[in-house]
Amino acid sequence: MTGKTLPPGSTIGILGGGQLGRMLAQAAYNLGYKVHGYCPDEGSTPLSQVTGQYTRAAYEDEAALAAFAAQVDVVTYEFENVPAQTVSRLIKSVPVRPNGPALGIIQDRLAEKSFLHEAGIPVTPFADIASQDDFAAAVLRTGIPAVLKTRRFGYDGKGQARIHSGAEVESAYAEIGRAPAILEGFVAFDREVSIIAARGLDGDIRIYPLTENRHVNHILDRSTAPAAVLPAVAERAGGMARTILEKLDYVGVLAIEFFLKGEELLANELAPRVHNSGHWTIEGAATSQFEQHIRAICGLPLGDCHALFQSEMTNLIGEAVHSWPAILAEPGAHLHLYGKAQARPGRKMGHVTRLKPLV
Amino acid sequence: MTGKTLPPGSTIGILGGGQLGRMLAQAAYNLGYKVHGYCPDEGSTPLSQVTGQYTRAAYEDEAALAAFAAQVDVVTYEFENVPAQTVSRLIKSVPVRPNGPALGIIQDRLAEKSFLHEAGIPVTPFADIASQDDFAAAVLRTGIPAVLKTRRFGYDGKGQARIHSGAEVESAYAEIGRAPAILEGFVAFDREVSIIAARGLDGDIRIYPLTENRHVNHILDRSTAPAAVLPAVAERAGGMARTILEKLDYVGVLAIEFFLKGEELLANELAPRVHNSGHWTIEGAATSQFEQHIRAICGLPLGDCHALFQSEMTNLIGEAVHSWPAILAEPGAHLHLYGKAQARPGRKMGHVTRLKPLV
Repeated sequence: MTGKTLPPGSTIGILGGGQLGRMLAQAAYNLGYKVHGYCPDEGSTPLSQVTGQYTRAAYEDEAALAAFAAQVDVVTYEFENVPAQTVSRLIKSVPVRPNGPALGIIQDRLAEKSFLHEAGIPVTPFADIASQDDFAAAVLRTGIPAVLKTRRFGYDGKGQARIHSGAEVESAYAEIGRAPAILEGFVAFDREVSIIAARGLDGDIRIYPLTENRHVNHILDRSTAPAAVLPAVAERAGGMARTILEKLDYVGVLAIEFFLKGEELLANELAPRVHNSGHWTIEGAATSQFEQHIRAICGLPLGDCHALFQSEMTNLIGEAVHSWPAILAEPGAHLHLYGKAQARPGRKMGHVTRLKPLV
Repeated sequence: MTGKTLPPGSTIGILGGGQLGRMLAQAAYNLGYKVHGYCPDEGSTPLSQVTGQYTRAAYEDEAALAAFAAQVDVVTYEFENVPAQTVSRLIKSVPVRPNGPALGIIQDRLAEKSFLHEAGIPVTPFADIASQDDFAAAVLRTGIPAVLKTRRFGYDGKGQARIHSGAEVESAYAEIGRAPAILEGFVAFDREVSIIAARGLDGDIRIYPLTENRHVNHILDRSTAPAAVLPAVAERAGGMARTILEKLDYVGVLAIEFFLKGEELLANELAPRVHNSGHWTIEGAATSQFEQHIRAICGLPLGDCHALFQSEMTNLIGEAVHSWPAILAEPGAHLHLYGKAQARPGRKMGHVTRLKPLV
């Protein structure tokens, strides 16, 4: 441990009030930390329900941010769209981890893809769309079909439009509001996999086994881990994770989503946080991704990442949450509900993890 | 499930602000429940740190109890010395589980031993000490050495005095304040074991594997589970647990401590709550004792009790908590700290669970 270690009893500030913050708080409590949540949302949030300290204020509220910073020893976040100005204000008086530059890069799909490409990580072909004039050259570069995405603030398939012919570029650009965009070549991949990795304050890196993910309507539906892939593929993904963590001088848990085509891995997206595809680690790995993130941002030694079981994690989305009685009656199924009252379509209400012996 | 099921989103009231309440709250959150703590202690408590709803008031404060009862859907407790009047006030407007009669019996060592004896559960020889006049007959019944204990409100060896000769009874009685007492024959046992069992609102009973416990200075130091005992011994302990749960019409988790002498089991103490010797179930069993208790009091189906690992749980008592950096650096060790600021001698500050494959 370094002199920068925050001992148990310290207070961790979490920006964002959702389920990732809730599960981070639960892991922080196991290690004896206090948690102070910060989220503008009205009413009860998954995080507000589980912590004694909570600020309900806008991310732009300077007075609230100053008071928050004065009451916490480190700040982290549970979503990547934290305004840059919020971080730059907080960072004057308290460490924010993961560090700002990573957040800036990951918030901009173009910067993210460029960073990955320059780091030697294979990505799908992509092109900058700053205006209508860029269409022709971009389509030449990415090929057709392609996906047009806003550079900033998209998630779960929002701010995206699929393009099947050059003629559709104009309407797709209008559809995403003519915002600065990136055109990405469409990859006919076989499977989607992701990797959860962490880097400590001392530079130590730990990498979880690869996870295979199935998406439905652009939302993660099911993760299985360890993924059934060739050892060489898992090793290559781990090497890429290591490169990314080091180049970003990163502290905390990072998730990387890949397309897998044959044995070829193409990095699709980074998340500078704990990730839905890592929920299986709560029961399925020696250290959960949530505890790992807390360890990293508090300057503690990182934990063991080995899989203890073969895990299958299924999201409970919208009305699917009403299956909780059947899940509770199922021996060995681990139910997690997030405390959300309204089961709106597409809303992540909880998840269930089922374990089998490792093969 | 019965019509009495409290669905996720309901609020569980917890009397007592300690680590058992903290870990109960964490389990309740996994299942989507809210938690409202109630404890008279000043300042931050292990439970207050992890919940958004908390009442700091005396257990005799009628207005505070009424407000608390109005805000929760069920009440449970994390310590057995809850005043009977607190329960009888609450129970007028909200279910209190485990039920009152169990609490009444367990709060009185004499009633507890008499109940066990009448239920056909082997116990150490015991005698009622209502006044000095009872000494002679009591010593005849229990033999010497013996232990004099106050009937009410003792724990971790407090309110107890060892007697090595008949002449010491008088001084021991003075030592415990001439309170109503029970004299118990001293048993030269080989090992101490305990069993954690649960009964649901529908009468279903689930029993965890037997745990072996080592005490130091009357405080639990280490638990290993499943205990290395003959299957017949484990089965007998399970049968006794079943008898006790049924006779008490109990709802929730109950712990029973036994002395083991050869293959003979003598019930020593009941705890109407989750128990320190069951902490290994968090990582070591398919369902933790904390989740099991939440399931029981909310009318949910009980969970699977099987051991997933061979577990060793060690308490971090007083200054021993300062070993947390070494524990965090140990692969696969699961650290739990309770958020207590002062590492006073004898104070339970946390615990660590180490897992090995089942043999």
